[in-house]
Amino acid sequence: MEKFITLERAIDILDNNVLNLNTEVISLMESVNRVVKNNIYSPINNPPFNKSAMDGYAIKLSSLENTRYRVIDKIYAGEYYKKELKDLEAIKIMTGAPIPKGANAVIKQEDVVVCKDFIEINKSVKQNDNICFKGEDIKENQLLVSKNKKLNYADIGILASAGISKIEVYKKPKIAIISTGDEVLDITEKLELGKIYNSNKYSIMARVQELGYDISKINHIKDGVLDIAKELKEISKEMDLIITTGGVSVGEKDLLNDSIEESKGTRLFWKIKIKPGSAVLCSKLNNSLIISLSGNPTAALTTFELLVRPTLDKLSGEKRVYIKREKAILYDDINKKSPQRRFVRGNLLTDENGQVVKITQIKSGNGILSSTLNSNCIVEIEAGSIGVKKGEIVNIIKL
Amino acid sequence: MEKFITLERAIDILDNNVLNLNTEVISLMESVNRVVKNNIYSPINNPPFNKSAMDGYAIKLSSLENTRYRVIDKIYAGEYYKKELKDLEAIKIMTGAPIPKGANAVIKQEDVVVCKDFIEINKSVKQNDNICFKGEDIKENQLLVSKNKKLNYADIGILASAGISKIEVYKKPKIAIISTGDEVLDITEKLELGKIYNSNKYSIMARVQELGYDISKINHIKDGVLDIAKELKEISKEMDLIITTGGVSVGEKDLLNDSIEESKGTRLFWKIKIKPGSAVLCSKLNNSLIISLSGNPTAALTTFELLVRPTLDKLSGEKRVYIKREKAILYDDINKKSPQRRFVRGNLLTDENGQVVKITQIKSGNGILSSTLNSNCIVEIEAGSIGVKKGEIVNIIKL
Repeated sequence: MEKFITLERAIDILDNNVLNLNTEVISLMESVNRVVKNNIYSPINNPPFNKSAMDGYAIKLSSLENTRYRVIDKIYAGEYYKKELKDLEAIKIMTGAPIPKGANAVIKQEDVVVCKDFIEINKSVKQNDNICFKGEDIKENQLLVSKNKKLNYADIGILASAGISKIEVYKKPKIAIISTGDEVLDITEKLELGKIYNSNKYSIMARVQELGYDISKINHIKDGVLDIAKELKEISKEMDLIITTGGVSVGEKDLLNDSIEESKGTRLFWKIKIKPGSAVLCSKLNNSLIISLSGNPTAALTTFELLVRPTLDKLSGEKRVYIKREKAILYDDINKKSPQRRFVRGNLLTDENGQVVKITQIKSGNGILSSTLNSNCIVEIEAGSIGVKKGEIVNIIKL
Repeated sequence: MEKFITLERAIDILDNNVLNLNTEVISLMESVNRVVKNNIYSPINNPPFNKSAMDGYAIKLSSLENTRYRVIDKIYAGEYYKKELKDLEAIKIMTGAPIPKGANAVIKQEDVVVCKDFIEINKSVKQNDNICFKGEDIKENQLLVSKNKKLNYADIGILASAGISKIEVYKKPKIAIISTGDEVLDITEKLELGKIYNSNKYSIMARVQELGYDISKINHIKDGVLDIAKELKEISKEMDLIITTGGVSVGEKDLLNDSIEESKGTRLFWKIKIKPGSAVLCSKLNNSLIISLSGNPTAALTTFELLVRPTLDKLSGEKRVYIKREKAILYDDINKKSPQRRFVRGNLLTDENGQVVKITQIKSGNGILSSTLNSNCIVEIEAGSIGVKKGEIVNIIKL
């Protein structure tokens, strides 16, 4: 097992140990936020036929001037004219209806004068006027969605318009959250001296849901190597990812390291050079990756964003494990020296002047929950920083 | 009924006709993305007691120099020392454990030398060193979450840490999607001449889900005033919002207006001065608001963002119906004159240099589905625009 490694090395190790899950075929109705396995091409042209862009009259343009056309039929969207249009004939046509054979233009309703069965045209008409051509929007065999894309509503609309009803997507990861610690009470219990409420279980559960994932199992286990090892052994057969909190620091109760050993799991790395959240253990057991976060709320939530989120993304179909960083202008001075790489909470404001980040973390320390309130990003401060000035460019990770 | 009104007037009418739904009390576990009714204050201090910030030794500081302290006990997080610490006594204390009565500082483990039952201190220690004080993070009665806030994982973490297990939130809206049109086939059917696939049903279903809402009912009805009216009458008793597509343009099949009349609903407005999506009808029937979008995919999706999304937000607890606009720098020239207010698809790129929007809508026209691909915002172009130049500031609506 590697110890006290860089964040980059931790990401590398995760990338090497996390594979895309298997795929399954689902109906388009269930496919929001699912990641497609393959490129998807259009099996049809869209529109599938030349159609009228307007309510009006389809005609075969005459070379004669001031021509009157005889209106011989009417077609709505969804219908079609079964014969061929002849010279000096017109068909009343609704938006979306197929252009009849023989017709080569549509005249808008408001540009004709109707006299009994005839129309007179008030405006010059050119060939192809008001016709949407077959394949104008999307051509047969055109790429609709690239492989490894997470489907949004626009993708789903396009796939539906091409008549694609089943798609192959990566399975959803099966996720368990296990909090540990004798000092934490569940929120339904009465507070006692020395105890605190379990916030990690709830904030991590909520964050996983916010990111669009389901949670298969959620539990709290009191401190005890054998109990934790038993639970991990059991659920690791079912889960793809187990997230634990607590019991990973260097104190006397280094429970997670012992529990992984007890359960014959493989530890991949322990502790990374960041603050907060340096105490993190990553292991493999049966089918499952286990990421053990600190019991400390801020540390746990920071490491969740840095390690757990990209892992979930790769499990569900992303090509690799990576952290999505952006740039922003710092709004406040950060005067604190930082021998280690640090991550602080920020609030990103974006407008035409740029992406500006304010630091929301007023209090420092691993355990400060209130710094997460009103924050929508994490600001990265390089190791060895002697402070960062207002106006400088920093890396941020959006939440 | 008002006709051909401005977008602002349409929003006003919606705001006057949409109320927050009733509330319900749910467990914190179910509360992701739910909107709270009331301000929520902390019933406790957090931390709830003075606690150790480090693994080390709690002592009562002595005025004597080079003092040795006798280690009389050890407390882990979750435990507490039942007596009072006396002069020259120390207690081994783990991070998170309560500071014993009488103690006024914690010395880090690495700053002492242990000799049998005694510790010798190598570093100067000040009163309150390494103590997290009761209420340091959050004070009793401090505001944790403001009323009408949609709960995210950070809110849920804070509420859990305060031991709040039940909260009062606005109910989720009951939503139905009804597509209409004889020309549309479901995606499982075989394409026929003159027919197109129903994309609206799928894209709107997906968009509603993306925004975090559930769909109670989804259906397609062939063109027929009586059938549509019957369905609307029936489901409007159950639903809070019915979204329909198709049958709202000025053509001969102006089905939705007739269906609302037939079902004795109240029409609020019909048609707004925008492009695409001018054809939209808004009505009330029984308990439900009905927003009838165009059958045209691009028009339907644009009006969805402008009218349906803010309506859903207010139903679920927002204070008013409003469109969330931001500013961005236009990346491309838009040369087209625009007598009407127009909305075109864009792709927003954000970095330290600003929020820049590229136009993704290459083809124009109501029905162009492909313009939604790779777009993440809608760009608003004012009525009467003679074109907008690269570098100018435009309003955008993020998707």
